[in-house]
Amino acid sequence: MSEKKISVGIVMGSDSDWPTMQAAAVILKDFGVAFEARVVSAHRTPDLLFEYAETAGPRGLQAIIAGAGGAAHLPGMLAAKTTVPVLGVPVQSRALSGVDSLHSIVQMPKGIPVATFAIGEAGAANAALFAVAMLANQDPALAGRLQAFRTMQTEKVLAMKLPEV
Amino acid sequence: MSEKKISVGIVMGSDSDWPTMQAAAVILKDFGVAFEARVVSAHRTPDLLFEYAETAGPRGLQAIIAGAGGAAHLPGMLAAKTTVPVLGVPVQSRALSGVDSLHSIVQMPKGIPVATFAIGEAGAANAALFAVAMLANQDPALAGRLQAFRTMQTEKVLAMKLPEV
Amino acid sequence: MSEKKISVGIVMGSDSDWPTMQAAAVILKDFGVAFEARVVSAHRTPDLLFEYAETAGPRGLQAIIAGAGGAAHLPGMLAAKTTVPVLGVPVQSRALSGVDSLHSIVQMPKGIPVATFAIGEAGAANAALFAVAMLANQDPALAGRLQAFRTMQTEKVLAMKLPEV
Amino acid sequence: MSEKKISVGIVMGSDSDWPTMQAAAVILKDFGVAFEARVVSAHRTPDLLFEYAETAGPRGLQAIIAGAGGAAHLPGMLAAKTTVPVLGVPVQSRALSGVDSLHSIVQMPKGIPVATFAIGEAGAANAALFAVAMLANQDPALAGRLQAFRTMQTEKVLAMKLPEV
Amino acid sequence: MSEKKISVGIVMGSDSDWPTMQAAAVILKDFGVAFEARVVSAHRTPDLLFEYAETAGPRGLQAIIAGAGGAAHLPGMLAAKTTVPVLGVPVQSRALSGVDSLHSIVQMPKGIPVATFAIGEAGAANAALFAVAMLANQDPALAGRLQAFRTMQTEKVLAMKLPEV
Amino acid sequence: MSEKKISVGIVMGSDSDWPTMQAAAVILKDFGVAFEARVVSAHRTPDLLFEYAETAGPRGLQAIIAGAGGAAHLPGMLAAKTTVPVLGVPVQSRALSGVDSLHSIVQMPKGIPVATFAIGEAGAANAALFAVAMLANQDPALAGRLQAFRTMQTEKVLAMKLPEV
Amino acid sequence: MSEKKISVGIVMGSDSDWPTMQAAAVILKDFGVAFEARVVSAHRTPDLLFEYAETAGPRGLQAIIAGAGGAAHLPGMLAAKTTVPVLGVPVQSRALSGVDSLHSIVQMPKGIPVATFAIGEAGAANAALFAVAMLANQDPALAGRLQAFRTMQTEKVLAMKLPEV
Amino acid sequence: MSEKKISVGIVMGSDSDWPTMQAAAVILKDFGVAFEARVVSAHRTPDLLFEYAETAGPRGLQAIIAGAGGAAHLPGMLAAKTTVPVLGVPVQSRALSGVDSLHSIVQMPKGIPVATFAIGEAGAANAALFAVAMLANQDPALAGRLQAFRTMQTEKVLAMKLPEV
Repeated sequence: MSEKKISVGIVMGSDSDWPTMQAAAVILKDFGVAFEARVVSAHRTPDLLFEYAETAGPRGLQAIIAGAGGAAHLPGMLAAKTTVPVLGVPVQSRALSGVDSLHSIVQMPKGIPVATFAIGEAGAANAALFAVAMLANQDPALAGRLQAFRTMQTEKVLAMKLPEV
Repeated sequence: MSEKKISVGIVMGSDSDWPTMQAAAVILKDFGVAFEARVVSAHRTPDLLFEYAETAGPRGLQAIIAGAGGAAHLPGMLAAKTTVPVLGVPVQSRALSGVDSLHSIVQMPKGIPVATFAIGEAGAANAALFAVAMLANQDPALAGRLQAFRTMQTEKVLAMKLPEV
Repeated sequence: MSEKKISVGIVMGSDSDWPTMQAAAVILKDFGVAFEARVVSAHRTPDLLFEYAETAGPRGLQAIIAGAGGAAHLPGMLAAKTTVPVLGVPVQSRALSGVDSLHSIVQMPKGIPVATFAIGEAGAANAALFAVAMLANQDPALAGRLQAFRTMQTEKVLAMKLPEV
Repeated sequence: MSEKKISVGIVMGSDSDWPTMQAAAVILKDFGVAFEARVVSAHRTPDLLFEYAETAGPRGLQAIIAGAGGAAHLPGMLAAKTTVPVLGVPVQSRALSGVDSLHSIVQMPKGIPVATFAIGEAGAANAALFAVAMLANQDPALAGRLQAFRTMQTEKVLAMKLPEV
Repeated sequence: MSEKKISVGIVMGSDSDWPTMQAAAVILKDFGVAFEARVVSAHRTPDLLFEYAETAGPRGLQAIIAGAGGAAHLPGMLAAKTTVPVLGVPVQSRALSGVDSLHSIVQMPKGIPVATFAIGEAGAANAALFAVAMLANQDPALAGRLQAFRTMQTEKVLAMKLPEV
Repeated sequence: MSEKKISVGIVMGSDSDWPTMQAAAVILKDFGVAFEARVVSAHRTPDLLFEYAETAGPRGLQAIIAGAGGAAHLPGMLAAKTTVPVLGVPVQSRALSGVDSLHSIVQMPKGIPVATFAIGEAGAANAALFAVAMLANQDPALAGRLQAFRTMQTEKVLAMKLPEV
Repeated sequence: MSEKKISVGIVMGSDSDWPTMQAAAVILKDFGVAFEARVVSAHRTPDLLFEYAETAGPRGLQAIIAGAGGAAHLPGMLAAKTTVPVLGVPVQSRALSGVDSLHSIVQMPKGIPVATFAIGEAGAANAALFAVAMLANQDPALAGRLQAFRTMQTEKVLAMKLPEV
Repeated sequence: MSEKKISVGIVMGSDSDWPTMQAAAVILKDFGVAFEARVVSAHRTPDLLFEYAETAGPRGLQAIIAGAGGAAHLPGMLAAKTTVPVLGVPVQSRALSGVDSLHSIVQMPKGIPVATFAIGEAGAANAALFAVAMLANQDPALAGRLQAFRTMQTEKVLAMKLPEV
């Protein structure tokens, strides 16, 4: 990770969420956004969750990306303990395919927002892109890189060729 | 409430949950189980939640009944911070009819159990009856009252008459 | 609305979405964040949608809050045309209670994020609070007001009293 | 593809949708309907989407078959920008099995119709058969081929034999 | 109805579906498309269903709009018996809000297409607009009216004003 | 199959449903109930469906077991054309796991009943067992075999041993 | 009720299910089928449930129609204790609209069938019509009445007139 | 199993549920709680179910953990016949992923509670941990072991390291 001041925290309830959440880390690294990635479990390390949330602001975090599956309380409880923007990623669960995670993350009560993204890896990547867009509001160089990423992405689609039938 | 040592705590995220959760209070009162009822919000009073959970055991609570709607993190976060048995009641939500609350409460990860009951008032009453059954394991008098309640309930059904068509 | 430079745009597909989306406007007004509220329909005014999205960045918008029901393409298409952060609010639909809106908004493909909030009014209010939190990252006075709002909200819950049974 | 004037456009958000959408191409080819197949992404190439929709009518397209997964905005946004009939095919998504795609495509607001077909390959084939039926309204030879296809299909089922148990 | 040759049939399983399906009739009338509206029940008048489907082509119908709720077999069985394009409208059911109707109509097997529209009145109106668009492919005057309708619809949205907060 | 008069018809929309539906055939064979198994597709052979239903009563069938997936119109349309009891089996579909089939079969309108069983093979077997139970009402020998089957089934469960942990 | 030997039992978990289940009683009465209607609760009168099921065969019942809501164990447990055909009716529940009842009734394991009908009143009526159809297999007079009912039902639909638009 | 008096019964509908339910047995063994594990099927051995439930209290069981899939009547029927606390575990079903099992177990009517846990193995383990917590209310040594388990679990998460990207 960068020696720059860390702007974004990526947290997840277990190292088994890493295959999903690393998509967020890859995006942030590619954009040169300093980040940290840690395991913080709402249910198994609640004190660490509170400490992480309480220190997030003072440590200068601009956003926290939190991935969780099943009951998925991590994003919402972080949001309850900090005013740093929290971005939630529903990790695909075994029985209910992530519908449970989606409900648990997105249906927050009035007063404590969690910005929610798609179930699984696409959601993790998009949470990171959203964090980049937030930071780019104040960082023209980053805004330029985001614009370039979008242009490249468009060109990649424009170049797709379909086979004959 | 009773001057007896409080055995069961009833908590809910807002006083707007009271119309659902009072069914639990009524049951406990009818059975003579000393209880307290309080508003504790996972998202708006997270520190109170932690304090409530941390003191529940030392204060002698034998069970906590927690009702919550939507993202419904209250039961799971209490369970994360105490080993006192937590009984979760999904409160019916506006848009998703409590399916979101049910998923958020029941789909807890391995290691931190929440005993979940039906959506709405029936669930609140049943959580209280379950708490009574737990306490009755050690309290023959209470067991007798529970048995009597069940008998009365059976008789009430047996007495139901259907109209002619 | 304020004479200050507008930071946040609130858009919705129809004036029939206003009862839901005004919750966002009220929050922004209370926090003193300059905003505009407009009807922009993805399906009935697609050119306006593109124009709105294309000018959002140059006009200095820091966030767009977009509410939509049913197929709910507004937030995602705005996000496709701008790098300004887009916050999506699923408006409760008649037949499917907003599950369709939620799916259409949250399940964006990798590359184009939409930050999604709860179905209905709570989601509209939370999108606005999230926008405030984003802006507060660079605005200590606003951060102070957000902290005060959260404290007041906590105190309001702490003051709730439940009736006797 | 045919040198005949193209009647039907098949578009999809990514070349990864081709395994599903080629079923439409195969049907159209078998019926001798001139078509084109292209990648057009609502979210990653929104300008191309608008251009495609705007030129569809002038170019003489009689129908556009659009396949998309997840938030699946492609069919609805095409329909917003053209009066050429748009036929939508929900592509099966990973986490939600295409329920999200189905909701995003079928739940269009009053005023902008998208004709929606089944999730996955059956839907792609049926969208093409529907386009054939539309064209056959004005083309007796095509109507004859459609009738023959249906007869053959019936005969294929009539010839099915089940094994003994 | 018009003395012109009838182009579109509107059918529904019961006169109780009329409050939903009349939205289709109103659209067709406004566009000057000759249509008929009839009650045809898949389950209670199956022979009429077959007769209706068998005579639809010879009678010159260019499209059949079929509305049905619950098990909703009407659109699919019409499509099984005619090659005239069938447009299905899921009528909102009591217990399952039309999800059952939607599934029954849209999930047709490969080979027999039904073009499906949104649940309820919006779907009925859109099915009619889709029929207009189909007919407009061969009828420049109708195409002009459709274009005018769309322009007017756009202007109506552009004229919407939101109240101050 | 038996030379006895056929009592039960097993029909399905495609030979691809046979792996599910053969469970019904096996049960009937084991119980010595004369049956036939045929492919009858509601959508691809609607005339055969009507003919099958119309002749079912005169031919002496006492029950028809119909399996279908997706839109699954076969059981309901048979029921519309005969008063012979129809037993519907939802075959597991690819995208929606049979929820679509279940809705299409069970949500029949008042007046035309279809007795519906579980999704997949268990449902096919149970439809056959139900047919046996119906016939056993008038056939003491069959009733005896059904009782013996149930006893054996009970004994099989009673004999199950779980391993040590 | 009739002095004739009772052929069909209608049971339900509570007298609050009567508004739904009386539709079954009305049908049976209209057809002259002798029946009884009783409250039998799986959960509150389990012994009565067992007794009812055990005596159903010896008492000559040909079918049992059982309505239940929520966890809805009544039909399945009756089926577990008798070989008399059991017809289950999901009663619409408050929070989950009867989806829970439907799942609990229809998803029976291999070996113990319950014939399941639509959620709510339509299902109750259809269960009774199915019972009539079962009995009609052995009772030509009843078969005639069923045929007449179906004819009348068809004629009622044929006579429906839609208003002009 | 222990020579100590058995405190907890683990029951399941079939030995095919053992791979899920053994997670409960492993937890109880690790905690030194005397238990028994048996196959008791609600549908195939209903008399055994009643006998098990009726003797549970007299035999001194403090809790019954019951796992079941599909219609999943076992936990609810045990609860109907005993006041010993019943803990229900939804076993993942084939077609509906355990949603059916969850609904059948959790949506119990007012008066007869079943404490429900997550679908699948996590739910089985958590039901056992909940039973331990119940017993620990009266057993300081067990409470100590539960506290130690929780501490160890926390430490395991704290020790998790994520790879670099």
